[in-house]
Amino acid sequence: MAAKTTLKDLAKMLDVSISTVSKALNDSPEISLPTRIKIKELAASCNYVPNNIAQSLKSKSTKTIGVIIPSILIEFFNKVLYGIEAEATKRGYKIIICLSNETFKKEQESIDTFINGSVDGIILSVAEETQKTNQISHFQKSLNYSLPMVMFDRVLDDIDCDKVTVDDLEGAYKATKFLSKTAGQNILFLNTLSGISVGRLREQGYKKAMANLKRTPIVLNLENYKAIEKGLGSVLKEQKIEAILAADEYSALLAMNVARLNGFSIPDDISVIGFTNGLISEYAMPSLTVVSQHAENIGSLAVDRLINRIEKKSTPDAIHDVVKTKIIERNSTKKIKK
Amino acid sequence: MAAKTTLKDLAKMLDVSISTVSKALNDSPEISLPTRIKIKELAASCNYVPNNIAQSLKSKSTKTIGVIIPSILIEFFNKVLYGIEAEATKRGYKIIICLSNETFKKEQESIDTFINGSVDGIILSVAEETQKTNQISHFQKSLNYSLPMVMFDRVLDDIDCDKVTVDDLEGAYKATKFLSKTAGQNILFLNTLSGISVGRLREQGYKKAMANLKRTPIVLNLENYKAIEKGLGSVLKEQKIEAILAADEYSALLAMNVARLNGFSIPDDISVIGFTNGLISEYAMPSLTVVSQHAENIGSLAVDRLINRIEKKSTPDAIHDVVKTKIIERNSTKKIKK
Repeated sequence: MAAKTTLKDLAKMLDVSISTVSKALNDSPEISLPTRIKIKELAASCNYVPNNIAQSLKSKSTKTIGVIIPSILIEFFNKVLYGIEAEATKRGYKIIICLSNETFKKEQESIDTFINGSVDGIILSVAEETQKTNQISHFQKSLNYSLPMVMFDRVLDDIDCDKVTVDDLEGAYKATKFLSKTAGQNILFLNTLSGISVGRLREQGYKKAMANLKRTPIVLNLENYKAIEKGLGSVLKEQKIEAILAADEYSALLAMNVARLNGFSIPDDISVIGFTNGLISEYAMPSLTVVSQHAENIGSLAVDRLINRIEKKSTPDAIHDVVKTKIIERNSTKKIKK
Repeated sequence: MAAKTTLKDLAKMLDVSISTVSKALNDSPEISLPTRIKIKELAASCNYVPNNIAQSLKSKSTKTIGVIIPSILIEFFNKVLYGIEAEATKRGYKIIICLSNETFKKEQESIDTFINGSVDGIILSVAEETQKTNQISHFQKSLNYSLPMVMFDRVLDDIDCDKVTVDDLEGAYKATKFLSKTAGQNILFLNTLSGISVGRLREQGYKKAMANLKRTPIVLNLENYKAIEKGLGSVLKEQKIEAILAADEYSALLAMNVARLNGFSIPDDISVIGFTNGLISEYAMPSLTVVSQHAENIGSLAVDRLINRIEKKSTPDAIHDVVKTKIIERNSTKKIKK
C-alpha cells in the first residue's frame, strides 16, 4: 500500500528540518507565521494526519463496517449488500450503510462520517460523478487515517487499496460468443452505462468478440431507459438484428418488450441477454438469460478482504480480486445446438 | 407520548424514598447491597435512564438520522429509502442505514448502535420476527433515551411514537372492486405475506370487498414465491378465476406467468393486480396494474415527522399519518367499461 505522508516527507519537500515542521503544525511561536501557514497548507494538501490522531482513531475497535453504495435502486448493489451483511454477521461485525446517490459530495460526507471513529473499515463502490471527474482526495484521506478500505465493482486505479471487481470484459465477450453460436452474428450491444467503468468494459468485451467474429460492432449507447423504446425501435426497423446484449437487466427487459412491440418474438426472432442476475430476470416472461456477476459473492469477498486488513492478517500489498462471470441460461435465448 | 420512568416512579414502586433510589443507583454504601441490587434490577427492567445521561446524549446534535429496514431485497423499502434520503438531504440531514434482516436481534443491535449518540432520531419498519413475537423493549429503550422515533409501514400498536402507514385495507378493497367491475367477480387473493401486518390488512380489505359483493372469498395463502407455480396452478385447473389480486408485485408477476403457462391470456382471460409500484411492474409485459403505496412519499413524510420531533416543532401527542393508495392502471387489467 502507498506510504502515508510523514513529518519527514513534509520536511524534505520544503527543505526544512523535521523539528521545524512539527513545531509549525503545533503552532509554536518559534516558527514565523508565514512559514507556519506554508507548512500547514502543504500538510493539508498532502492529507497529512499526525500519527497520534491516526493512532487514537485506530485503537477504538467498533466491530462495525461502513458501506457506501451509489444507489439504492440498482438491484446489483442490493444483492452485494445482502452478501456483505451475511458475511459481516458471520464474522461478528455489524454494518452501517450510507448512500452516495452517485454524487461526489455525498460520498465525501459519508467518508467523513465513517472517519469520525464510528467504523473499523469501509467497503464502497465509487459514485458515477467521482468516476467521471476522477476525484480521489476523500479516499486518500480515509487511507491516511489508517482506515482500511475495499472498493468493489466500480473502482479507481489511482487509489491503492484492496479491490473486488467483476470480469466485465470477459463476461461480455462470453455472452457475445454465446449469442453468435445460438442466434446469429447480427448482434447489437445496448448500453445505458457508457459513463461508468463497467459499461465501458462490457462494450470492450463485446467489441473484442465481434472483432474475433470479423463482424462490425453495432453499439447503441443511450442516455437512459426512456430512450430505449424509440432508439432501439428505429434500429430494429432499419437493420437485421438477431440478438441483443444489454449492459444491464432492466435494459434487457425493455429490449425484449420493444422487440415484441415491433413484431419480433423472443427468442425465435431475436435472442436477448442482460447483465446482472436479479429476481426480475427470473420472473420475466420469457425469463431472461443473464451474465451473473455473483453479486452476493462479491459482497462476502469484500468483507473477507476488509476484515483481514482490519485484523492485520493481510500482506502489505493491495489485493485485486477479479470475480469471473457466468452465463445463466433461461428462455430469452435459443439453446446451444448439440 | 408515554412518560419516561423517573426516580419518583421507581421510589413509588418499591415504597422507598427518592433519595434511597438515587443513592442505590449511584452505588452509595449508605444503602445495603441487596437493596442496591433490587433497585438496579427494577431500574433496568423499566428501562430507566438517568436524566443527565439522557440529557447529554440529547444535546449532541449529529444532524444524522438512523434508518432500520427489514430487507434490502424488497423494492418497496428501497423506494421508501430513496424518499427518506432525498427529504433528509433537502433538510440538511444525513442518513445512515442498518438492516434488521427481519430478525429481532439485529433490530435490537441497530437500535443500540443508534442510541450510542450517533444519530438524532430513528426511522424504522418493524422486522417480521419482532412483529410475530411482539417484542418491544428495544423500542421503549430508544424512547427512554429521548431519541425520537418514527415507524413506517410495519408498526406496533404498543409503541407510542409517530407512525406513517399505508391504507392497505382500503387499497385492497378498492383493487378488488376495480377487478369486479372490469373482469368479473371470481377474484382470487394471492398472499405470501400473511405473517405480517400489511399482508393481513390487505386480506381484510379484499374480504370486505368480497362480502360487499356477496361473494365467497378465495384466499390462497402461500409460504413463499416458490410455492406459487404449484399452488396457483392447481386452483386455476379446478375453478373459474377471472381476476387475481396479489399482496405484492413479485407474486403478481409470477401469477401472470403461471396463468399463461396454464393457457390463460392476460388480461383477456384473467386480470392481475399487485401491490407496490416498482420498476418491475412497469417493465413487465404486459405491464402490471398496481396498487401504488406512494413509497417515496412515505419516506419523505417520515423524515418530516421525525425532524419536527427532533427540532421540537411537534405537539406532544404522537401523530399517525395514513397514506392513501392509488391504483395505477396498466395492461394486466381490462379497462373500466365507459
